Amino acid sequence: MLSTRSPDELFAAARDGNRRALGRLLTMVERRDDNAGLVAERAHRDAGHARVVGITGAPGTGKSTITGRLAVVSGGDRPAVLAIDPSSPLTGGAILGDRIRMDDHVSGSAFIRSMATRGHAGGLAAAVPDAIRVLDAAGCDPVIVETVGVGQVEVSIAAAADTTVVVVTPGWGDAVQANKAGLLEVADVFAVNKADRPDARGARRDLELMLDLGHRGGWRAPVVLTTANRGEGIEELWAEIERHTAHLRESDELLRRRGRRHRDEVVNRIELGLRGRARQIIESRSGAAALGRVDRREISPGAAADMLLNSLTGGAGPES
Amino acid sequence: MLSTRSPDELFAAARDGNRRALGRLLTMVERRDDNAGLVAERAHRDAGHARVVGITGAPGTGKSTITGRLAVVSGGDRPAVLAIDPSSPLTGGAILGDRIRMDDHVSGSAFIRSMATRGHAGGLAAAVPDAIRVLDAAGCDPVIVETVGVGQVEVSIAAAADTTVVVVTPGWGDAVQANKAGLLEVADVFAVNKADRPDARGARRDLELMLDLGHRGGWRAPVVLTTANRGEGIEELWAEIERHTAHLRESDELLRRRGRRHRDEVVNRIELGLRGRARQIIESRSGAAALGRVDRREISPGAAADMLLNSLTGGAGPES
Repeated sequence: MLSTRSPDELFAAARDGNRRALGRLLTMVERRDDNAGLVAERAHRDAGHARVVGITGAPGTGKSTITGRLAVVSGGDRPAVLAIDPSSPLTGGAILGDRIRMDDHVSGSAFIRSMATRGHAGGLAAAVPDAIRVLDAAGCDPVIVETVGVGQVEVSIAAAADTTVVVVTPGWGDAVQANKAGLLEVADVFAVNKADRPDARGARRDLELMLDLGHRGGWRAPVVLTTANRGEGIEELWAEIERHTAHLRESDELLRRRGRRHRDEVVNRIELGLRGRARQIIESRSGAAALGRVDRREISPGAAADMLLNSLTGGAGPES
Repeated sequence: MLSTRSPDELFAAARDGNRRALGRLLTMVERRDDNAGLVAERAHRDAGHARVVGITGAPGTGKSTITGRLAVVSGGDRPAVLAIDPSSPLTGGAILGDRIRMDDHVSGSAFIRSMATRGHAGGLAAAVPDAIRVLDAAGCDPVIVETVGVGQVEVSIAAAADTTVVVVTPGWGDAVQANKAGLLEVADVFAVNKADRPDARGARRDLELMLDLGHRGGWRAPVVLTTANRGEGIEELWAEIERHTAHLRESDELLRRRGRRHRDEVVNRIELGLRGRARQIIESRSGAAALGRVDRREISPGAAADMLLNSLTGGAGPES
């Protein structure tokens, strides 16, 4: 019985190519069940080998098609796709199953997994890095993470990859939107998809102009034209991803990036934990008592918060 | 010297109509200086009498003009305006001074104050309720709070009023945008401004249809057509605001709303305080040591977060 196996046994099976074992490990970290901590621990210990590629962009730019095609051309023995799309009703319902609209584009060897938001976005931001590490530790490579680049959380998830590809479509509007959403800052490679449309070259030129104005030192994001539904430009796109991977590994940028991500992740998890405790406090008897005093105007909300904070953290002084 | 007076003396002066004393009290809570806690305490104790009206909507809908006109027609002895507009470069620079573009519309008796974001939006969300209470406790009435309804924080600030007016302009787009931004849910009264434009009646009809689909029990938000730059519809708008005030006071909805807001405010302040402490932990020696172990893959980010959380809150078990 798969369900009675320990995390270590499941990892061993997953490394041997057992997809159901891998699926179970992912479910454990996604549901945060009793074994989640142990699975995350094992995964982190053994991870760090896969190329982790993020694909992000506005809805309708063709991210899913590019993702599926990349999994095929990557030439990896065991490519994996993690699809995170909080805005898609399709993904919303497909938490545990594979994702349907990709099947056409992916060969039998790719492992595909959907993750949905399910409640708090911060929780997703915590679960995704664990899921990436589980895939990595199970020997998948590359691990391609698809997200919709629409909000701060999504952008931060996209930035959890070693290499982030930002997908735009022809037309000034999209490039400007990408800029506004903070996507330009996280882009290591650009794909101008639907390049068979009239203004694809114009879109590339616009992006190059933006890059002229403010690109980071050391690496300038290349811009690749793709027509993903016909498979055009995908190999060139993958070549640029590989070039970026090589750049990261030759410089010490890979370790720096991962260090920064570890820090962000620990901060995010501490905040999540603290938020949970804040909610516990306010629902406790002393929380209700303090709120009653606020309602009767005996103390201000700030004073109530300070009191409750001090009871939580053992009185390190007011925090107004 | 005004600067050497105690908060109690400043409140006494402000209640006598001394605007500089009132300005100083607001600066104290805005800057969170040493006296901020004491000022907030006094303000909360004496507040609860003013009608607090929020005016919100997308940029360019004419909120400022409506706000200024309402201050005049309200008939209050001492109307006050608190203008919060994180997206406006005008307000951005006018943290301490009065706001210029309103002056035309406001009679000499209105007290006007701008607040800018300055850093963390959560901090603003904490400072605004204090500022409202300072104005309230100083005897201002009504207190009109103008915000741009574009993000979650802005919407939550708008919802900090007793009565929230959502301003839209003619054309489907705006009503749909307002819906997406969550503004429909917080609206107690709608103003369709620039009602001299062709499709004003259509905009009202669209809003009424949306209200048919999902309005809350007890109070249905009325929709008022205004052309604020000519002063048209402003008196009718104020009458609807008064009608809502009466509704709140006759039902126990006013106390319920304020209780809910107190709760939200205490939770927000606890989170702010905890976030500050989380940052301190991560920058401490034990934080650096934990991150080093994560980078060497000895422990996972989740385990590091649990360790640091427990050192903060005295070990209430893991929080993975």
